[in-house]
Amino acid sequence: MLNNYQYIKINLSNIQKNYLKLQSIVNPKKTICSAVVKANAYGLGISQIAQTLCNAGCKDFWVTNLNEAYLVKNNSQAARIYVFQGVNSVEELNVIEKNNFIPVVSDRVQLDLINKYSKKKLNIILNFDTGIGRDGIQVEEIKSLNLAKCEILFVMSHLSCAEQKDHFLNKKQLENFNILQKFFPNSKFTFANSGGIFLGSKYHFDMVRPGGALYGVNISTDKHAQMLNVVEFYASVLNRKVFYKKQYVGYNATHEVKKGDKILILNIGYYDGYKRILSSKSKVYAKGFFLPVIGVVSMNMIAVDANQLPESIFMEIKSVELIGEKITIDEVAELANTDQREVLTSLSNSCRRIYTS
Amino acid sequence: MLNNYQYIKINLSNIQKNYLKLQSIVNPKKTICSAVVKANAYGLGISQIAQTLCNAGCKDFWVTNLNEAYLVKNNSQAARIYVFQGVNSVEELNVIEKNNFIPVVSDRVQLDLINKYSKKKLNIILNFDTGIGRDGIQVEEIKSLNLAKCEILFVMSHLSCAEQKDHFLNKKQLENFNILQKFFPNSKFTFANSGGIFLGSKYHFDMVRPGGALYGVNISTDKHAQMLNVVEFYASVLNRKVFYKKQYVGYNATHEVKKGDKILILNIGYYDGYKRILSSKSKVYAKGFFLPVIGVVSMNMIAVDANQLPESIFMEIKSVELIGEKITIDEVAELANTDQREVLTSLSNSCRRIYTS
Repeated sequence: MLNNYQYIKINLSNIQKNYLKLQSIVNPKKTICSAVVKANAYGLGISQIAQTLCNAGCKDFWVTNLNEAYLVKNNSQAARIYVFQGVNSVEELNVIEKNNFIPVVSDRVQLDLINKYSKKKLNIILNFDTGIGRDGIQVEEIKSLNLAKCEILFVMSHLSCAEQKDHFLNKKQLENFNILQKFFPNSKFTFANSGGIFLGSKYHFDMVRPGGALYGVNISTDKHAQMLNVVEFYASVLNRKVFYKKQYVGYNATHEVKKGDKILILNIGYYDGYKRILSSKSKVYAKGFFLPVIGVVSMNMIAVDANQLPESIFMEIKSVELIGEKITIDEVAELANTDQREVLTSLSNSCRRIYTS
Repeated sequence: MLNNYQYIKINLSNIQKNYLKLQSIVNPKKTICSAVVKANAYGLGISQIAQTLCNAGCKDFWVTNLNEAYLVKNNSQAARIYVFQGVNSVEELNVIEKNNFIPVVSDRVQLDLINKYSKKKLNIILNFDTGIGRDGIQVEEIKSLNLAKCEILFVMSHLSCAEQKDHFLNKKQLENFNILQKFFPNSKFTFANSGGIFLGSKYHFDMVRPGGALYGVNISTDKHAQMLNVVEFYASVLNRKVFYKKQYVGYNATHEVKKGDKILILNIGYYDGYKRILSSKSKVYAKGFFLPVIGVVSMNMIAVDANQLPESIFMEIKSVELIGEKITIDEVAELANTDQREVLTSLSNSCRRIYTS
């Protein structure tokens, strides 16, 4: 096989275990544990992961749009599939009705469309803004909503700061969400994302919606909240180099090496999802050694300092870990000054993917 | 069509014009203008773009690996296809020999492999490190190279700082590259990337290798170096919101709005290649107005301040420009604290692509 040592390994078994762990945190008599597989399951492969979660007993899936809804349906006819982007045209409404997809309705324009064109009462999620300020109907509009053509499966809202346990907005959003119960006394409710699950049972209601935690994102440093790692990312060694003189390495001459210094050139770069912001910041792991990335991350290459490698390893090593058990997504995200989820969704589809179970 | 207003438009005609402009800068009697289509043509689609450049008369293509080499070959049997990652196994060597691909040989391990296993004299590019310190054979090794099984089509090197016109390393690399001519008096030479083309004819040699400039990356602010824009990136308006009270917008409550403020929610986020680092920094363009992105860029959504939009536009607008004629790749790259090429290669394959000619 070509480029044999460059690949992304996705551990489906650990996704199942993470799902079962999250499910075990909520009260199974009251609260369904659904799964957020939007954005191609955070870039990891919606078809494979929906199938895996189905096998673990999950029946409720959240997707971005109708394209993704079809992909989940192909893996489980029995799944309930909730579409975050809702319904935005008559054509989308037809697809939703025909396939029993469940739109997340986040404004009155979408409600108007349903009222005008839906052929029957439509199962929906009614999404309120309790403080995130982004998607969701504002609570002030509640009395003016025309819900004649809607069967509300769940009243929903989304937490803004759930990963900051003590953020004042968590409690405030919870208060606002509880107020909604008065208006919909016969409805079910869904509130908690991954972070919300760890805020306690008051946040769980009738269904929780973990996303990142399924894929190994650690929401907090609490030991009981640690998730199993799902992604491993490896690169091939392209070239080995021992320098004959002092010189610079990489674009813009940002890193200097001296005579005798050893480097490895690896066959990944920002095209593959190894972000340029990691230039001269991150490290890779090889047979017991952590090797610093030196110089600017190129489109298809990085250089790493290999001075500490014994000669035999330096000459023989074929593959190094960029992300995995030794170098966590959490660490990479921190160095890249971003969220772990962006590290996941940036991994290029150009890399070969290996799914293990 | 679903998600009708979210798409990436790739202007093939402008890629052709950029190619012809770059070609016009070099002396056609002496210097071939090749095209770097590595990394899926900087993320834009190697098959479509190789075909387009073939039609413009390009016969020399640079790709990352053998998978990409096949894609170019499918579009032009007559093309000469140079493979940056070279030859790294007997299996790769077999593919190269069978298809007449031309490996870029960047170290002695690759040479040894050719000497040991090549069935005939192999056409290669011999790549020297004249100062980039990344890929390439060091000049000190030149006398010990065994080239018995190699037919050197071009001696190559890569510039490290070509986009900084006055960087001392440009001249130093040029001196080192000229020294190589003594060792290979009968060979042809290739040195200049996009930036190198604008450093003057001394850098052009027998073949130039533009990449970024083909795709609209402006190497310098010099007027004669301005390239035509190639990529336009649009998002759909998902929701409109007029706030009833002061509140925060987006994850982590980083942006505050007041009563009466208007926002639009757009259906793209960092999953689609709109980087999270653009949070509260960038802007989008809509019918004559520049609208600031407010709060944190989510995975599949951003919020933009729409206060300045007249009511009719606010209610009717369906699509906004994220990158294009009004908001250039150069500006987005600067705000994202990266290179324009990373903006291009980050654009998600999940977005519908429209190729115009």
